[in-house]
Amino acid sequence: MTEPLQPGSVIGILGGGQLGRMLSVAASRLGYRCHIFEPGAAPAGHVAEVLFTAPYEDEAALRRFAEGVDVITYEFENVPTSALDLLESLKPIRPNRRALAVSQDRISEKAFLNDLGLTTAPWAQVDSEADLRVAAEKIGLPAILKTTRLGYDGKGQARLTSDADIPGAWAAMAGAPAVLEGFVDFEREISVIAARGLDGRVAAYDPGENVHREGILRTTTVPARISAGQRSDAVLLAAKILNALDYVGVMGVELFVTRAGLIVNEIAPRVHNSGHWTQQGCAVDQFEQHIRAVAGLPLGDGARYADVVMENLIGADVEKVPALLEERGVAVHLYGKGAHRPGRKMGHVNRVSG
Amino acid sequence: MTEPLQPGSVIGILGGGQLGRMLSVAASRLGYRCHIFEPGAAPAGHVAEVLFTAPYEDEAALRRFAEGVDVITYEFENVPTSALDLLESLKPIRPNRRALAVSQDRISEKAFLNDLGLTTAPWAQVDSEADLRVAAEKIGLPAILKTTRLGYDGKGQARLTSDADIPGAWAAMAGAPAVLEGFVDFEREISVIAARGLDGRVAAYDPGENVHREGILRTTTVPARISAGQRSDAVLLAAKILNALDYVGVMGVELFVTRAGLIVNEIAPRVHNSGHWTQQGCAVDQFEQHIRAVAGLPLGDGARYADVVMENLIGADVEKVPALLEERGVAVHLYGKGAHRPGRKMGHVNRVSG
Repeated sequence: MTEPLQPGSVIGILGGGQLGRMLSVAASRLGYRCHIFEPGAAPAGHVAEVLFTAPYEDEAALRRFAEGVDVITYEFENVPTSALDLLESLKPIRPNRRALAVSQDRISEKAFLNDLGLTTAPWAQVDSEADLRVAAEKIGLPAILKTTRLGYDGKGQARLTSDADIPGAWAAMAGAPAVLEGFVDFEREISVIAARGLDGRVAAYDPGENVHREGILRTTTVPARISAGQRSDAVLLAAKILNALDYVGVMGVELFVTRAGLIVNEIAPRVHNSGHWTQQGCAVDQFEQHIRAVAGLPLGDGARYADVVMENLIGADVEKVPALLEERGVAVHLYGKGAHRPGRKMGHVNRVSG
Repeated sequence: MTEPLQPGSVIGILGGGQLGRMLSVAASRLGYRCHIFEPGAAPAGHVAEVLFTAPYEDEAALRRFAEGVDVITYEFENVPTSALDLLESLKPIRPNRRALAVSQDRISEKAFLNDLGLTTAPWAQVDSEADLRVAAEKIGLPAILKTTRLGYDGKGQARLTSDADIPGAWAAMAGAPAVLEGFVDFEREISVIAARGLDGRVAAYDPGENVHREGILRTTTVPARISAGQRSDAVLLAAKILNALDYVGVMGVELFVTRAGLIVNEIAPRVHNSGHWTQQGCAVDQFEQHIRAVAGLPLGDGARYADVVMENLIGADVEKVPALLEERGVAVHLYGKGAHRPGRKMGHVNRVSG
């Protein structure tokens, strides 16, 4: 399928969280309908035509889902491989499997980036406590040990500040393959939200400057405080990654800005929290851009026409909503989730100026 | 119910067309879910939690719909009275019945506006061919004869240029009560999209300048080419109407700009096609503003931060979409309808600048 999806076509989305929800809304603006596949609670189902509630192991449900859609995309990178194998035999999956395979495994990701000539934090594969001793010696401490797969928001991670931490850190991996990453002395964190169309054209939004706390994104500010050269380097680097993967869709590329240049922190083969500011600052936001790409439409105009600060509403932050609704120049986006709890992303706001 | 709707609450929308569709999306941004009631095809159902497909005469369906929602609003003013009577006994309806009653009948609307001291086109009630002769004499020709109820997009209308047109024009009404309206010599057409909250506060967007062709809106441009005094007059006039009706929600007020001042053409007790530009030019668009009002939330910031030209895609205009998707600064909004036909609103685009 290389022709654009006709209006009225159906896009299947794996994952029913806030990203799927905002993708579904963007798809509706282009005249498409969305079907969501999600084993758990699915706020995306509030704004989708059909919601499939079933585990990823339910082959019959996966088949019914695939039969009703024209193309499949996803809002998270850890979709089980067996589900992808089945779905791929039935309908196109965009972005492609290679992008998923690379980003599902920290070692594949780093090796892929290094092979492209891009700089990552120093790293070493760790499959035993003995490996960890060698890696700690080579990379130096402090460093952080992470399982190679399925880690997020600080889970499956252990920080090492001295050799005494080695046995405990290795034990925390519970025998899973791991990677030791050195710390990077960075000036700031930025990210590039870039898209590549079915025709191979690439478009990138202006890089945003990110602030994380406790491993979770708090704010993204555009414009980022970077030079014109850094901006151009960041965008070219992202384009290189997308082209190398023959990627179709939106990708988030997180970078550290250092005196020695840009270092790639990680890539996410999907719309990204640090791209939410595009909902207010651009004619075409990252969600519509992703839908355009997977539908085979031309990429849209991502030029920025306003300054924006995006702030996540995490856990009890959502109690600030009544005050935020009164604030001028603020766009509130809530995700339709139930009760808040620590670390749960409940919504975000975009503060617009200029 | 005067407390704001809690997140997760359900808003019922009567009518499942493009206005209901965009209202449902806006409600999702505020964490609400929407249920749609629509007898026919319902593109709003693609982005709503539940769709009820039933005629307005189906009392059981209306009851089930009302039981599942916290408040009821509507996307069109011609909801049958019997359905409203039943629904009102079960859940609050916003905007209120008076706004609907006034706007459902051209004579009620004009009398209401004149009683407020506002100017309308000259008009006369016509219940017979003899009435029409007297009215034509009083108002002068050319003039236009319209049924008092349920007319839209040029239906139920007859134009009179000389006395010879009188018998045919009266026959075209098929015995329905009618109103003869004199023509207004206007410089331009504008509209004010205004909102009133449950707390009585009023907010208005910058007036837009409208171009109609064959009785259908083609473009709205902001800013309108009017003076600061005209702008302020237009907004104050709209506020007067909303306050007089104890209105809750968004209203579209269409005005003629003449040398003698502003003349009210008509009012629509709902979000309005001429307010679609707010999707790109404002932190809070007309759809979210309406949801805020009916949910009892504070009204949002409607300040305009960009110049916008909204253009409707009517009938075969939708074939221009592939080219529009390539155009810079253009946001495309499609309604998810099936085949196009003459006069059918298929979508709109907002061209952003500044």
